[in-house]
Parts: sequence; C-alpha cells; structure tokens
Amino acid sequence: MARIVVTGAAQLGPIARSESRESVVARMIALMEKAAARGCDLVVYPELALTTFFPRWFMEEQADIDFFFERSMPNEAVAPLFAKAKALSIGFSFGYAELTEEDGRTRHYNTSVIVDKAGEIVHRYRKIHLPGHKENEPWRAFQHLEKRYFEPGMEPFSAADVFDGKIGQAICNDRRWPETYRELALRGAEMALIGYNTPVHYPLAPEHDHLQCFHNHLCMQAGAYQNGMWVVGVAKAGKEENCDLIGQSCIIAPTGEIVAMASTLGDELVVHDCDLDRCTEIRANIFNFRLHRRPEIYTALTSAEI
Amino acid sequence: MARIVVTGAAQLGPIARSESRESVVARMIALMEKAAARGCDLVVYPELALTTFFPRWFMEEQADIDFFFERSMPNEAVAPLFAKAKALSIGFSFGYAELTEEDGRTRHYNTSVIVDKAGEIVHRYRKIHLPGHKENEPWRAFQHLEKRYFEPGMEPFSAADVFDGKIGQAICNDRRWPETYRELALRGAEMALIGYNTPVHYPLAPEHDHLQCFHNHLCMQAGAYQNGMWVVGVAKAGKEENCDLIGQSCIIAPTGEIVAMASTLGDELVVHDCDLDRCTEIRANIFNFRLHRRPEIYTALTSAEI
Repeated sequence: MARIVVTGAAQLGPIARSESRESVVARMIALMEKAAARGCDLVVYPELALTTFFPRWFMEEQADIDFFFERSMPNEAVAPLFAKAKALSIGFSFGYAELTEEDGRTRHYNTSVIVDKAGEIVHRYRKIHLPGHKENEPWRAFQHLEKRYFEPGMEPFSAADVFDGKIGQAICNDRRWPETYRELALRGAEMALIGYNTPVHYPLAPEHDHLQCFHNHLCMQAGAYQNGMWVVGVAKAGKEENCDLIGQSCIIAPTGEIVAMASTLGDELVVHDCDLDRCTEIRANIFNFRLHRRPEIYTALTSAEI
Repeated sequence: MARIVVTGAAQLGPIARSESRESVVARMIALMEKAAARGCDLVVYPELALTTFFPRWFMEEQADIDFFFERSMPNEAVAPLFAKAKALSIGFSFGYAELTEEDGRTRHYNTSVIVDKAGEIVHRYRKIHLPGHKENEPWRAFQHLEKRYFEPGMEPFSAADVFDGKIGQAICNDRRWPETYRELALRGAEMALIGYNTPVHYPLAPEHDHLQCFHNHLCMQAGAYQNGMWVVGVAKAGKEENCDLIGQSCIIAPTGEIVAMASTLGDELVVHDCDLDRCTEIRANIFNFRLHRRPEIYTALTSAEI
C-alpha cells in the first residue's frame, strides 16, 4: 500500500503588527478549508505563523516582547484551528513563539509543532540555528533579533511517527545548513516541514539581495536530493510592516525537483501527492548512507575547535 | 591586494580505451596553451584524466587493471605536461589512478594532485567517497567497479596553501555529499577543485537519468553557497566507449552562481577570474560558522550507529 501524504503548503501573506491572533487563525482556517476540498492529509503553515515577525524590532520592555509569545499550546486563540482540523480530519504544522517555564526559569523558543488528524500535538521542535544578532544595531533598515529574543533549541533534530511515515521539522534559517537535513535523514525522516520568514534585504551583504529566492530553493532542493527526503518549505511572504519577505513556498520531491510552488506573495495553498516510499529511490541507491558515507573521516564536522 | 586566481576548467572529451597517455597529454597541453593565452593561473582537469574510465569494465587479471594505474607522479608520460606548465608558469590539477607501496602492500587509490606554478606537486588527495560496487554485476549496461579497484582514501579532507589562498580537492562522487564541502571549508578551503566522470545512465535508478545534469549542478552550487567557497567542477564528457558521460563543467562562485560553463561534450576550456576574497561575503555573514553552527547538536553526523 502506497504511503501517500497529500500535502498542502499553506503560505501566509503579511501579518500586520496590529493584526490579532484571531484574525490570523481565521485566515489559516480558510486555507485549511481549501486544503480539505483538495483532499489534503497535512497542511503546513510558516514559522511564527500567529503574529507579525516581531524580531525585526528592538524592544526593551520584556512585556512588549512576551506579548508575541504563547504560554500554552493549544490556547484559546488557536482553538478554532485545532477544532476545524479535527473536524476535517486533517493534520497540520505551524510555528509560534513559545514561552515556557523550565527548571524554575522562563524560556523563550522559536517553536513549531505537528498536530495529527486526531488533533493531538505529536511533535515539537525548537529552532536550533538562530540567525541574526543580540544587540540593537540601528544602522540596519530593520533588526533581526532572534538571538536576543529566543534561546536556541537544545534537543536534537528528530522525526515523529505520524501520517504512516517519519516526519521531521526545521525552521527558517535551519534550512540553509546541510547539517539540518542530514541529521533529520539519519534519524529516519522521510519529510521535513520547514516554515520561514525571509526578508529580501540582508543588511550584512545587500549585494546578494537579488539571490534570496535562488538561495532559498537551492538549499532546500539540495537538502531534499542529498537525503532522499520530501521537503515542504512554507513562507510568510509579502510586504509586512514595510519589510519585503520572499515567497515561493514549495514542495520538493526526494529527487530535488520542485513539484509545487506558490505564485503569489499572499495567502495561498499549493498541493502535491507526496509518496513517502519514493525516498528509497534515492536512499537505497546513490545516497545509501551505510554503503557510502565515511563518518570516521568527518572529524571536523563536530569539532568545537575548528 | 585582491587575491584573484584566473582559473580554467579544462573539460576533456571522451578517451578511447585504445588511446595512449601520450595522446591524452597532448590534448591536455593544447588546453593549457589556450589557458595561457587567456591569462590563467590555474588549469583544472578531470578525474582519471590520463585514460578511459576503466571501472566500467570487470577485469579479472590484476595486470589488466594495473595497466591503468600510475606508479609514480610525475612519470614519463606526463612529463611534457609538467614541463609545459612550468614553462608557462601555470599551476594545474588532474586526477589519475595511483598505485603505490605502503606498509609492504600494494595500494590502489583514485587520486588527484595540485601542481604549483613552479611544477611542484603541493597537494595530493585520495578519493574518500568511492561509489559503485565490488562484484561483477552483468545485468548492468556497464559496471562501476570503483569499490573493487580502489581503496578508499584514509586521510581527511585538507586544503593546500597555494595560489595565495587555501585550495582543496575532491573527486566525482565526493561532490554529491555535503560533508565534503563542509569538511573542506572548516579546514579553511576557499576553493574546491572537483573532477568527475559521470554517466548519464545510472543503472540502479534509471528513472532519474534525465536529472543527472541537474543533480551535478545542484550539489556543487549548494556546496559553494553553503560554504562560501569557489567550486570548479570539471568533467570528462561525451560518448566514451559507448557510455554517455555528462559535461557542463563549470566554475561556481561562493554565492552558488554558475559563472562559467562548458557548452560542448568535448575538449573545452572555460575561464573565470576567481577572487578568493569574495568567500568572506558569505563566510563572515550568513554562514559564519563560529556564530551559527551547532556542532554539539550534530551527534548523528559522525555516529557509526545510525
């Protein structure tokens, strides 16, 4: 029996700073209803899907920062999304800012979860590769203060047993790092769900701004092919609070081919029938890890010295 | 002072089984003379540049196999190439089958070397990721017996101090593995020289044959961008002994952009001014390894268990 996961990449257009979570959730539900009409098993929303991308602002008051965080999941604002998905028997994943208490201390993570068709959270991932910077840098057109507002995830990459397969998650900047896909694949993932918020403008090297969309696809396509894995990359796109975010949300086959792609910078759903069994075309052959990898040679990869 | 290495990717067309090393070396010299006319500092030739790609045949007699190997480097057959390069003050790299004695035993490696402008071999690399299989598999249209005829390289990836920069090497199948580029970059390489012999037809998954050229560029472009490194990929191309080999030899900038590419399947030179200082555009910013990598998390990468 084929293991086909009908997957929808549910791109979101811009979210204004003033837009409520309830309003965003209503947009997410509209995309979910479309996905149901198209027979989806799984709908993938972007990173920090419930609010505007707040790390673009330097904020000094912790309360102003914490406003953008969720203290429980699910919570009241997202309950209608969970209910709708359960009613439609569709699984989904989405990113949010997570505020939690651990070891008597308040923690902030950039998190995403997978919810199964029964409405249960079956996988949680906390972003490992936090980009950006810690201090206010007023010379920038906008800030990218993820290293200030979040702690890095300390749990390894992993894959959930769900949708009759092994599904992993990564978030935004993680997708640029080949280690992300390799860790996921070595731990069995057959599909990686990756939400992102990616400005067109990169203040440190603006001469590469015209390459943002190319780099986005290059990393995800290489990660898919080199690991024989489906990759679902989903943007928050468009002009958000005067910051242009790239779109081109896409579904990538284990061959590295883009098989579905958004063509707008707004709320948009693209769908593909993802056959998880196709991973073996790659992983049993050209990238048979056991036959061909040389972990004993890769000493620099995990060295803290180099 | 800019560190510009004017680099020529010197693609070779097919080499017949009956063609002598002397004949191939004459072809390599013709490309080198063209490179000199174009101001090259460095000419990069493909993997196993001196003979036909012999692992496509199953041979039982060791003497028949060893016929394709070089017992010393340089040797009489390649001396004219070394002499010409020295006279022109051009550095070069090329691949060959290396037969050597170590610890009282005969060893066979798939090797490539970098020769500086003074004609000295300054770097030797032995292929780490050997593809293919060990036993004769007559069902295949042709064999790929690298795992039979060669031992895997046991020395780590490394970079030579040459051409006023740090230059590393990899060979053919190595370029498909993200670990290759990462190991090279973590060890300081600013440019990777990669020769290849890649059949269009892959017997284990012929349904991907039409993607060979795409996969070739995808891996090298991702490796270049994700490591902020120049990549020079050079094919032996064309119909060789009834086996079609891909071409599209190319030079790739640290942005991942292909900046020069061969447009034939024959002997062809393409040239680009490679500014080694451009690596910092990437490696000091988006891929600043020290700021953003998480080696403590990458435990699966070097685990022998997974």
